[in-house]
Amino acid sequence: MEQKGLLIVISGFSGAGKGTLVKELVDRYGYSLSISCTTREPRPGEVDGVDYHFKTKEEFERLIDYNGFIEYAQYVENYYGTPRKFVEEEMAAGHNVILEIEVQGAINIKKQYPDAVTMFITAPSAEILKSRLYGRGSEDEATIDKRMKRAITEADSMPVYEYIVVNDDLDECVDQVQSIIIAEGSKSKYKESFINEIKDELSNM
Amino acid sequence: MEQKGLLIVISGFSGAGKGTLVKELVDRYGYSLSISCTTREPRPGEVDGVDYHFKTKEEFERLIDYNGFIEYAQYVENYYGTPRKFVEEEMAAGHNVILEIEVQGAINIKKQYPDAVTMFITAPSAEILKSRLYGRGSEDEATIDKRMKRAITEADSMPVYEYIVVNDDLDECVDQVQSIIIAEGSKSKYKESFINEIKDELSNM
Repeated sequence: MEQKGLLIVISGFSGAGKGTLVKELVDRYGYSLSISCTTREPRPGEVDGVDYHFKTKEEFERLIDYNGFIEYAQYVENYYGTPRKFVEEEMAAGHNVILEIEVQGAINIKKQYPDAVTMFITAPSAEILKSRLYGRGSEDEATIDKRMKRAITEADSMPVYEYIVVNDDLDECVDQVQSIIIAEGSKSKYKESFINEIKDELSNM
Repeated sequence: MEQKGLLIVISGFSGAGKGTLVKELVDRYGYSLSISCTTREPRPGEVDGVDYHFKTKEEFERLIDYNGFIEYAQYVENYYGTPRKFVEEEMAAGHNVILEIEVQGAINIKKQYPDAVTMFITAPSAEILKSRLYGRGSEDEATIDKRMKRAITEADSMPVYEYIVVNDDLDECVDQVQSIIIAEGSKSKYKESFINEIKDELSNM
């Protein structure tokens, strides 16, 4: 019997490089990327089904009623949610699913999926985090300030994650996350059928 | 503050390739190898301090009295034990320590060191295990038969280990174990001082 896929939950500070990391994991290893649903307006350049599944408020609320999300939340007046169907079908097919999500969502998912692999991505230091946010050049000082303030709150939740990955060099960071995924897939809790097979085989020799 | 080293406990079927695996891990990554003490006679070619620390019964029993072993056992009339001093000093110095040990010893160590990383090495199948034992050419049929019988008992303890590593190809097996070691070292429980540092830094910006 094929092993079920892992649910890999990635959070981290804004500016830690989660987006690039996730893209590399999908490109290099073919992991399935869960795409969130949202009711907010697409920003210029965002593509439906790539960046988000864009939904109307009515569509989103119908999905809530049908238990269509493994977690969802409302920020300001917009909904954001993780579609259940994609995640569960991919895992059942033996594919590892990657989910990039903020702290509260990660905590909710871990409650429902205790085997979910949770990791928090951080820059090597707050100084480097700040300079990366400035380096993007896309945000004004007030926005960066807001992101740095949110990082203080997010840092309180770091111990809740099973793994902390320091993103200093992208390639090293990708390798480290890939090591975590390989290790998690080697856990004996997933090897029950292999263990039973080899036990039967040994007994019948 | 430097992170403490990991205690990596490796067990597995006779013929699964533990010895070669451990040698490669030490050679490639410089991990510290714990060498057992024994009161049995050295076999031809065995070197004191390399294969075992050979002790007299009196020396061994004095070490027991001084709490000098993290675990020990008596087989037939010989003692075998894991010296405490080496393991604890190496871990305190931030070095990962590898311990190759049979099932009961691994269980005893996990009780004392709950953070110990336990892995069980197996061949892909019982058939392959048997053919590897014959392939060694160093053992008669009765000995191989005894090893295969012991494998049946050992297989019952496989679920006690955190990780199961199938040794099909040596290089892949070494990589997989190395991934497990990297993942274990990334656990948030070891990152307390890093988390506190970045929290302080964020708050003081």
